[in-house]
Formats: sequence, structure tokens, C-alpha cells
Amino acid sequence: MSELRGACIFGQSGGPTSVINASASGVFQEALKQDCITAVYGAAHGIKGILNEKFYDMGKEDIKELELLKTTPSSALGSVRYKLKKVEDDDTDYKRLLEVFKKYNIRYFFYNGGNDSMDTCNKISKYMQFVGYECRVMGVPKTIDNDLFGTDHCPGYASAARYIATSTMEIYQDARVYDTGMVTILEVMGRNAGWLTAATALASYKGAGPDLIYLPELPFDVEKFLADTKKIYVANKKVIIAVSEGAKTAQGKYIAETGSELDKDAFGHSQLGGTASILANMVKAVIGCKVRDIEFSLLQRCAAHVASATDVNESFMAGQVAVKSAVAGMSDYMVAFERAPGDEYKCEIKLIKLDEVANAEKTIPLEWINKEGNGVTEDFIKYALPLIQGDSCPPMEDGLPRFARLKKVLATK
Amino acid sequence: MSELRGACIFGQSGGPTSVINASASGVFQEALKQDCITAVYGAAHGIKGILNEKFYDMGKEDIKELELLKTTPSSALGSVRYKLKKVEDDDTDYKRLLEVFKKYNIRYFFYNGGNDSMDTCNKISKYMQFVGYECRVMGVPKTIDNDLFGTDHCPGYASAARYIATSTMEIYQDARVYDTGMVTILEVMGRNAGWLTAATALASYKGAGPDLIYLPELPFDVEKFLADTKKIYVANKKVIIAVSEGAKTAQGKYIAETGSELDKDAFGHSQLGGTASILANMVKAVIGCKVRDIEFSLLQRCAAHVASATDVNESFMAGQVAVKSAVAGMSDYMVAFERAPGDEYKCEIKLIKLDEVANAEKTIPLEWINKEGNGVTEDFIKYALPLIQGDSCPPMEDGLPRFARLKKVLATK
Repeated sequence: MSELRGACIFGQSGGPTSVINASASGVFQEALKQDCITAVYGAAHGIKGILNEKFYDMGKEDIKELELLKTTPSSALGSVRYKLKKVEDDDTDYKRLLEVFKKYNIRYFFYNGGNDSMDTCNKISKYMQFVGYECRVMGVPKTIDNDLFGTDHCPGYASAARYIATSTMEIYQDARVYDTGMVTILEVMGRNAGWLTAATALASYKGAGPDLIYLPELPFDVEKFLADTKKIYVANKKVIIAVSEGAKTAQGKYIAETGSELDKDAFGHSQLGGTASILANMVKAVIGCKVRDIEFSLLQRCAAHVASATDVNESFMAGQVAVKSAVAGMSDYMVAFERAPGDEYKCEIKLIKLDEVANAEKTIPLEWINKEGNGVTEDFIKYALPLIQGDSCPPMEDGLPRFARLKKVLATK
Repeated sequence: MSELRGACIFGQSGGPTSVINASASGVFQEALKQDCITAVYGAAHGIKGILNEKFYDMGKEDIKELELLKTTPSSALGSVRYKLKKVEDDDTDYKRLLEVFKKYNIRYFFYNGGNDSMDTCNKISKYMQFVGYECRVMGVPKTIDNDLFGTDHCPGYASAARYIATSTMEIYQDARVYDTGMVTILEVMGRNAGWLTAATALASYKGAGPDLIYLPELPFDVEKFLADTKKIYVANKKVIIAVSEGAKTAQGKYIAETGSELDKDAFGHSQLGGTASILANMVKAVIGCKVRDIEFSLLQRCAAHVASATDVNESFMAGQVAVKSAVAGMSDYMVAFERAPGDEYKCEIKLIKLDEVANAEKTIPLEWINKEGNGVTEDFIKYALPLIQGDSCPPMEDGLPRFARLKKVLATK
């Protein structure tokens, strides 16, 4: 494969994670080392930053700060939820991207995101091929939801899972303090995939987790839920329940939707929330006991202080591999993880065609859900436990995390 | 002072904290070393455990597990909210306590809690003196609210403050991800004292905290709040606001009460919550932008994984000093902290009469609140920053915290 000389640009897309910047760090540090990469740009707010010609010259950043990105949560460059139209319907954005790519001689495009972002990646790549502009495109996976097809797990998932499991263990201790009855309902992110909600089972594995876990993979049966809860309440007076924000009835109605009108985001996804609160009111009405609902809210995707070192390292590596592979001539792939066979956890990197991954969604295998539909099996624990290992030890300053401080020098031409 | 030989009993009371068990660890480990203490009991659910003659023989516990209590959140023995009646109104409970104390030859009573618990401590001590039963009584302070009189700060506060400041910094990163406008409202515990809400200012000090902070020390002016928010929103499109759950209007009505009917706890305190959610709806109506409300909920009092090492060590020491002082002949005191003069933080221990501390409440000095009433001054940062220093490094197992596992062998006679 012939050498391709030119600039590279990297963008972050979709909801942030604790480690999305670790991948950014991997991309930037690796790209800055490559002779054939003539400039390293970071797009402000993903694809929008390219369209608006707003991106930063990462070569102007202090290497120490780029290294600190590893433990800085959220999207340091800014993220975006922007859906490219189909090129056959409207090619305005594509033409503009080409114009910017040409102007800055951008020959490498790295995009970090989930399902929707891999679709964006794929569309851009196809367009560049169609117009004959040589450009290598690589997707770097990212999603706390862990729902990307073709990869054993996704960067960002493990850190969110570690936060959720740790917090659940702590809440378990707290919820047992008084000798009075109490039901605690934890609401966890994950619209269609129950990976995050299932992470509460790691706390149960350590003896301090929920009694009942309801994943969005199965229809949520309100009557069954109330009966399950009552049964445990009568026996133990304490019940801890984990429920996905995406819990929906057999008729396809979100529990959260029964509460209030919903906004939709740019992709037409419903903005969920309030599931635990609605269920808490039901339990209160039926059992008449004290009920507490807790939403892990944004913290589950940004609590870098408790990130998994395994996740941080793998996310960084995913960024590095994206660059190395593109430089070596690969294009149109997403970096993916494969678990090596055997009992000991080992993560190997592979590449998977963007065509295969874009818009596909990976949910929890149904055989990992127990017969009652209110918990997960040992298979899930075996899967998830290795991912949350290791303390990422974010650097501290004054007892608080020291996040990366980027200069964000705008690229000019 | 003559030696007093007999058993000791320790109880935990009120809302748990991340480090209440660190004080328990201090009491138990110190008491087990003392020759004049013939048995070391831990009361199940505080005073209720004594009344019901349900307490554990801590001598039967593994020392390693007692050491692990230092980093195990919540009340390992179980807590209680139980208000003793005035002895002149009803002395039933007092007589029962005396009976149990006599039966087990309990001569040392250590009680760990906040305002209400120090009152309980004081009442029991007075009664024992009145009936001529020799018993030394020591209060060990504990409250995330930091509102106990006579002590520079309270065990439990710093760890909650560290959690709140860290999480606020992380949310700050997350809330800046998109280039669209957003208002984020954080709801923090603290009914009448704003110490916890003010802890978000530590995040601002590190450049990643709220723009506006509303403490319960001042009346909450809804119109002013909306105007403050709008002003910052217009200028920056991003607003982060921290508000106390105890925010109330000049007329004394809790913001949270404007939303829904409230339960009251055993002390007649209103159970608050929903303040941020109610304010979020107001902001949405007035500004029309995206608003997110986040309750730190139970996690702020049980997130031991991010506890302050300073807090853990001081809480442990408070327990030790309570025992040492009682053995040395002191009674009717609460252990308290005094900050040594000078720029370098040094915490010294003193004793303060229970009479002085019981039911008094320490709020944030008004001169530490800015003129606008929507933030705190540098004085608060100087006060709080030293308290949150140090990582308590809780022992881990499988990537998750390893909490103490007590045998809880019931004491018998």
C-alpha cells in the first residue's frame, strides 16, 4: 500500500463517556508520531466542527495535557448528535466536507462514537470513494451502552459498569441501615440494551446488589414486577431493584412515557427518565412502604474518578490502532475488541468493516437472563467482571481530579 | 480518677455517612485494648438495640474486619432515628436502659450521631447520674451536614464534600459536551445548613463548578434565581446551578413542598427532595431551554470509594479518643475538632460538654456568602479544601470495594 501523506482529523460524537478522551489521547499521540500525517486536527463538536471549519491544531497542545486526556471524562473537543442525510436525498453536507478535506488536505478521518456515528463514518467514506478523493476512514467505538455489533465490548462500557456496580454496593449498605422496610429502585441508562442495568449484578455477585434486575431485552410486566417486589419485601423487608430507563411494556410503551410527555433527540430517540420514579409510586401504592428511587443520571457516563483501568487502556489502544491501521493502508473499518479464548482475560484488537457495524445493535443474549426474567446468569458475571478491573488512578490536585487543559488553538489555512 | 471496670456499648444513630464506621472502628479497636473494659458491645440500630437487648459482642470479630470498617460506608451495626421522650414525661425507656446497663454491667456508653443523637446521649447521661448509676458517656460526632455546634467540622462531612465536588467537576465536563444551550441543576443534601451545597464551590475553585450556588442559610427568591439563571444563560448558553434540598422562600415554604405532599420522619423533619426538579420545570418554562436536574441522592452520604483520607483518619481518631477519654475518667462530652492556627491544616481534638452541643445547629457564616446570595467566598474554600485531602484507598476485591464482613454474634448474659 502506498504511503498517504496528509492531515488527519478526529471527531467525537454522541453521548460522552468516562474514557472517550482516552481514545482521543490514543489517536492524537499516535498521529503526532506518524511522519506521513502532516497535521493533527481535533474537530469541535464532531462532524459539525468540520462542516463549520472549526477544529483545533492538536500539534499545539502540550503532550502532558494530551496524556491527561486519558483520565478526563466527557468529550474534550465537544460532541454532537448530527445525522447526515442520505447522499441521494441531499449531498450538501458531503460536498462541504469534501471542500474542507481538500482545503486542509485531510486524508485521514477518525470518528469516535456509537451506532449512529459509525453510520456517519460509513457514509462519509462511501462518498469520498464515490468522488475519488483518497481518504482513509476509521471508526473508533465508544458507548457506555455496549451495544455495538461485532466487538466483544465497547470502550466506555466498563467504566460506566464499574461506577454502577460500586455505587450499587454503597447504596446497598445505605439501604440496610434502618430496621424498617424499604424498597430502593435504581434507574440505569440503556435504552434498548441492558448491559448497564445488568452491571448492578456485579454488586450482587459481591453480596451487595439488587434482588431484582429488569432489562429492556424483555417486555416489562408491571404486575409481575409488583408481585416480585412484594414477595421479597414480605420475606426481607428490604428490596433493591435495578431497572433500565428503557423498560417497556409488551405493548411497546415505555414505563417512563406513562409519566409525562417526552422530547425526542435529533435521531428521533425518546429522551427517557423517570422510570424508577414512576415504579416507586406504584410500589408505594401497592405495598405502602417507604420507597426510594435513585437515578444514576449523568454520573454513570462521566464518573472518571472510578473508571476501569482496563477500559482506559483499551480505549487508548483503540485510538492508537485506528491511526496505525489507517497509516498502514486500511480504511472503512471500525476498531473492535475480541476476547482471547481461555479463562484468563485478554483483549485482542481486530478490525471490522463499517458496513457490518453501522446501525446494528447488540443486546444481552436472552440465555443470560434468568427464567423469571428478573436477573442475569453467571455468564454475564464472567463476561463483565474482567472488564472492570484496575484503578485508573486519575491524577489529583488539591484532592480533586486534575483534568486535561487544552489550549484549543484553532486550525487556520 | 478511679478506674471504672465494666463493659462498653457503642451505637450508631441518624443518617449514615461514608465514615461513620471509621469511628466505630476507632471505638472498637481502642476499647478492645483497654483492660478496664470487660466487654465491647455494638448496639444493633443504636438506642433501639439497647432497649431490645440486641447487641453484638465485638470481641468475637476478626480484627481485620474491624479495620475494614474504616472504609465501609453506612452504619454497619444499623442505625436508628429514635427520639427519647423527656424523662419527666415518660421514663419507661430510661428505666429499661438502666436495667440493661445493670444486667451487662455496662459502664461506658458511646453514641455516634448528629444533633439529635447528642441530645439522646445527654439525656441518658443525666438520667444515669440522677439514679446514681456510674456510667461514662461520650458522644462521637457524625453528620454529613456538618452542622454540629462546637466543632470545626464533623466526621462524614469531608467525604460527602469530596464526592460532591468530584462529581460536580465530572458533570461540568459532561454538561459542556454539546454546543446547544443547557441548564443543569444539582440538588444537594442539607436541610438547614449549606455546607454540602457549598462544597460544589470546590469544583468552581478548580474551574469546573457551578455558576450559581443557593444555600438554605438565605431565603430562596425564585424571581432572583430565574433572573440569575437567565443572565448567565444568555451570556454562556451553559449554566450549572447547585441548590440545597432545603431551599425555602422568605415565607418559610420549602421549594420541594410546592411540588408534593411530604412525609415527616420520626423527629418531625420534612423528608425533602425534588427541589431541583421543581426548579428545572420553572427554568424550562421561563427560558425554554434544555434543563437537567440531578439529585446526588443517597450517594453523597455513602460513596466511600471517594472518601477523604483526612476524614477517615479523623473519624477513626474521634472514636479512639472517646474511649481513651472515658477510660481516663471523662464523661458527658462530645469529641470535637479544633483547627490549629496557621496556614497549614492541622486538626486537634478537644472535648466539648454535651449540654453545649445538643440540639444546637451550626450553619455557614453569612459573611461567607457572596453579596448576590448566589455563591460563597474564598473563606469557604480555605475552610473546606484541607478537609477533602487524601485518597482513602479502600481495599478492593475483583475491582470492587471489599467491605467489612462482621459476624455479628449476639451478646448473651
